[in-house]
Amino acid sequence: MHDRTARSIDPASDAAIAARVTPLPIADVAAKLSIPPDAIFRYGPHKAKLSLDFVADLFARPDRAPTGKLILVTAISPTPAGEGKTTTTIGLGDALSRLGERTAVCLREPSLGPVFGAKGGATGGGQAQIIPMQDINLHFTGDIHAISAAHNLLSALIDNHIYWGNGLDLDARRISWRRVMDLNDRALRSITVGLGGPPNGFPREDGFDITVASEVMAIFCLADGLDDLEARLSRMVVGQTRGRRMVTAAELNGIGSMAALLRDAFQPNLVQTMEGTPALVHGGPFANIAHGCNSVMATGSALALADYVVTEAGFGADLGAEKFLDIKCRQAGLAPAAAVVVATIRALKMHGGVPVKELGPENVAAVVEGTANLKRHVANLAKFGLPVAVALNRFTSDTPAEVEAVRDALGALGVTVHVCSHWAEGGRGAEDLARAVRDLAAQPSAFRFLYPDEMPLKDKIETVAREIYAAGRVEFSATALNRLKEFEAAGFGRLPVCMAKTQYSFSADPAVRNAPSGHALPIRDVRLSAGAGFVVALAGDIMTMPGLPSHPAAEHIFVTPDGVIAGLS
Amino acid sequence: MHDRTARSIDPASDAAIAARVTPLPIADVAAKLSIPPDAIFRYGPHKAKLSLDFVADLFARPDRAPTGKLILVTAISPTPAGEGKTTTTIGLGDALSRLGERTAVCLREPSLGPVFGAKGGATGGGQAQIIPMQDINLHFTGDIHAISAAHNLLSALIDNHIYWGNGLDLDARRISWRRVMDLNDRALRSITVGLGGPPNGFPREDGFDITVASEVMAIFCLADGLDDLEARLSRMVVGQTRGRRMVTAAELNGIGSMAALLRDAFQPNLVQTMEGTPALVHGGPFANIAHGCNSVMATGSALALADYVVTEAGFGADLGAEKFLDIKCRQAGLAPAAAVVVATIRALKMHGGVPVKELGPENVAAVVEGTANLKRHVANLAKFGLPVAVALNRFTSDTPAEVEAVRDALGALGVTVHVCSHWAEGGRGAEDLARAVRDLAAQPSAFRFLYPDEMPLKDKIETVAREIYAAGRVEFSATALNRLKEFEAAGFGRLPVCMAKTQYSFSADPAVRNAPSGHALPIRDVRLSAGAGFVVALAGDIMTMPGLPSHPAAEHIFVTPDGVIAGLS
Repeated sequence: MHDRTARSIDPASDAAIAARVTPLPIADVAAKLSIPPDAIFRYGPHKAKLSLDFVADLFARPDRAPTGKLILVTAISPTPAGEGKTTTTIGLGDALSRLGERTAVCLREPSLGPVFGAKGGATGGGQAQIIPMQDINLHFTGDIHAISAAHNLLSALIDNHIYWGNGLDLDARRISWRRVMDLNDRALRSITVGLGGPPNGFPREDGFDITVASEVMAIFCLADGLDDLEARLSRMVVGQTRGRRMVTAAELNGIGSMAALLRDAFQPNLVQTMEGTPALVHGGPFANIAHGCNSVMATGSALALADYVVTEAGFGADLGAEKFLDIKCRQAGLAPAAAVVVATIRALKMHGGVPVKELGPENVAAVVEGTANLKRHVANLAKFGLPVAVALNRFTSDTPAEVEAVRDALGALGVTVHVCSHWAEGGRGAEDLARAVRDLAAQPSAFRFLYPDEMPLKDKIETVAREIYAAGRVEFSATALNRLKEFEAAGFGRLPVCMAKTQYSFSADPAVRNAPSGHALPIRDVRLSAGAGFVVALAGDIMTMPGLPSHPAAEHIFVTPDGVIAGLS
Repeated sequence: MHDRTARSIDPASDAAIAARVTPLPIADVAAKLSIPPDAIFRYGPHKAKLSLDFVADLFARPDRAPTGKLILVTAISPTPAGEGKTTTTIGLGDALSRLGERTAVCLREPSLGPVFGAKGGATGGGQAQIIPMQDINLHFTGDIHAISAAHNLLSALIDNHIYWGNGLDLDARRISWRRVMDLNDRALRSITVGLGGPPNGFPREDGFDITVASEVMAIFCLADGLDDLEARLSRMVVGQTRGRRMVTAAELNGIGSMAALLRDAFQPNLVQTMEGTPALVHGGPFANIAHGCNSVMATGSALALADYVVTEAGFGADLGAEKFLDIKCRQAGLAPAAAVVVATIRALKMHGGVPVKELGPENVAAVVEGTANLKRHVANLAKFGLPVAVALNRFTSDTPAEVEAVRDALGALGVTVHVCSHWAEGGRGAEDLARAVRDLAAQPSAFRFLYPDEMPLKDKIETVAREIYAAGRVEFSATALNRLKEFEAAGFGRLPVCMAKTQYSFSADPAVRNAPSGHALPIRDVRLSAGAGFVVALAGDIMTMPGLPSHPAAEHIFVTPDGVIAGLS
């Protein structure tokens, strides 16, 4: 028999820490941003969506030019030691609130894949969490499910179109529109569908990506209104005819249904941090084959409502920040006021060559060595004209000499280092960082993109490789070069590029930590995301459907006898 | 370019009719059943879930013995002419409310498959609808998405288990746990997964069912609390070892995660009819390979809160009512007070042999002929000891002589016929039916099951075939007989049987309308639903993943420039 009575919650877990806070009624959170009660659609007492009408009105106002200052939180190249980008985003938001600033935090929504896999949830940790963490980490307000349904409806329409006569002459071998599921399920990466004889259709190769890798997710996060959402969905390329004509989603006659499935989800979600700072948590595209930031609907709303908007980008700054700036900011007309690069002493030691099991003891030399990674990211952000501060997320094992080494290294670049303890202390632990960010954001903006729209696609890729990755050269496959020409001939030459490279290294080799330079960056293939509005350049094998580990987190999640969901991290 | 401006809503559509009503605040709807404000979890102004604590308290009360009277709405064998079972359930509920009775309606949640396919939504029509119809027909409160996620998480855990060494010795050829998606997508019926080499796992045959065919959905609708939910999930059989041992879901170590995914969804949804009658809309299992009724959580709550609870069962009475009575009522300890069989003159004509294009002109002879189907269903319900009324759903083409013919035919059985016009007039149009139902329900109950638990499985199948379908004999395949013996040997002999037969005929041949008798019923195979707690008997090919028609409803659904979802029916 199944026994639920013996279970209890770990009191040191993030869930238990979050449970000790009494959340504000969501209407009170909304009021902090002057959002009227009739502009929110409540999902219980502590979650809400901003109404589409309210957001449309914010976006349409003559004073649309954002009044808020946008602060980007990014990080060094990730290591197994952990950096704490999400906790820093939350802690900085709380610290700005404590300083009396009208602040909103903008984050991505967690996917069920990592929640049940190895990585866990995406709601921060310790005293720097967004709540209700169980709700946000599981279904939240259903946005990702809506995206899965919209994506897979289009998949069904494609096979249904072929089944009923294939009037569009779609080439079943060249359908690029795969299916999606919001789980880690490696068995679905490569499949054959339509088996079983005539009633089931025409057999063909297919596969599932995780939903956050769907182009619908990328569009959801880049569209600035329902019209733009539908227009982008319509432009998506789903495959080719036998004559190699690109077939768009609009030709399958389901765009209206997709928009209907997405309409409610498209409204930004409002929750709060443990300290009551408003948090807009909306959308969450992959950071490799897509741009990896929360929605324009949320960021744009926040900028019209708050004085400071703190948001994060995926992975390290080479991938996440570059895409945030060159894709999201370019498409949405946003200009950040400052950037924060997050690092930890432990992670810098790993970049300095220390194995994960030897991170405990003081090792100043390794820290100094590893600051090369941090300095590279900081220097890269300066190329966008952004003022930068460094947040050093404190661990108890950090020594004064190690911290001083980081200060020295960054001081040479004129960048200040702020030791942060928001994980243990909440916003109070990030006030020093907050003051520095406020000062940086007060400077006149010199924000610029890395490359202009009119630069050829190949040159854009080479520019990112050279300027951001410090690559010596880019080795394009013949396929990649041909396709870039195809895309330009088809009128897509002005799109930005979305680099799909390992997040663990400036190079294409995940094993090469710290700050390699002069390496060759292989571009094996390129893909068009015509609806999202970028060209994906694939530097190596990019996994778009993760697998589960041998002992996934799913084995440790449970519901207590009182009905409380436990075991999420 | 995509043009959204030209679209407008059909003023005669169900959506437009529903939009002319101002819904009550959901707290006011709850108050009609004395549900306190803190017992509901709101999803915007017009949808809510009853809290698990509140429902658990209702179920645990010493006076749990339901105070409400349960009225089952069922129908003749369905035809393309349409019967109107859902509208009658809603209309009868509204009529009882108009008579001053404290009434709740219990319905199933719509699946996205039919919404975008051929059938359309499931929220009634005309003046007999539940609202907000767009929300309910699309994602509603996310219940079906939660069920998909829980189901597919188990699928991922199965393949992951094999990938990491297959400690359970699962036989990849004998995994019976398929995957699910809440769409009509025939290309997914039969697939191969795990292709692409070692990183993706071991190739094997698999397939997707529509989510409403998931055993998780059946369990969701039969469990009477979280403990029961988890216990049932644990018992599900997912496949066999090479030694033919049945492997249960519990052995994959994901039951806690499945329960966590289902917890919020498991709370019954509260909405309202267009006339403000409380409606609990929760769960929606397939009516062929599962039992086809809304959740025990909803029905049980409603019976503790209302004086009359009107609910419907899937398909015609031979399938839907029989399963409602022999499976749901048996497992949940429910005893209906009366049943209503819905028919239309048009459908009776079709049973009387008239083609669908010739249903317009008066044809009393065909109506009389077709009443054989209605009389059979009515007589069947009497075998359960239930008092029965017939609801004749009025169409403008019905003639007085045709109606009189039905009255005459049923009068011979002592059953009254009530012409209903709730589609056009709302609850007022079903008051005559409501008075009759109230009188029937006041009679002492003689409710009984068709067969006792201890009857052997084979005999249970034969009993249903003989007593309900009027079959002359049952032809079991050798496989079916062997499996029934296996199931009994494994301790499942006391389970009820769930007949998976075409809904269009008392026989196994969908083309044979009206009231065939003496036919042979082939039982090709049987399946164990150990968690749901029934043995499925397959009388013919049963489709568990529908396909889309050549012009699916998905082509006509859209979002207006004002953000209103239109085109749902």
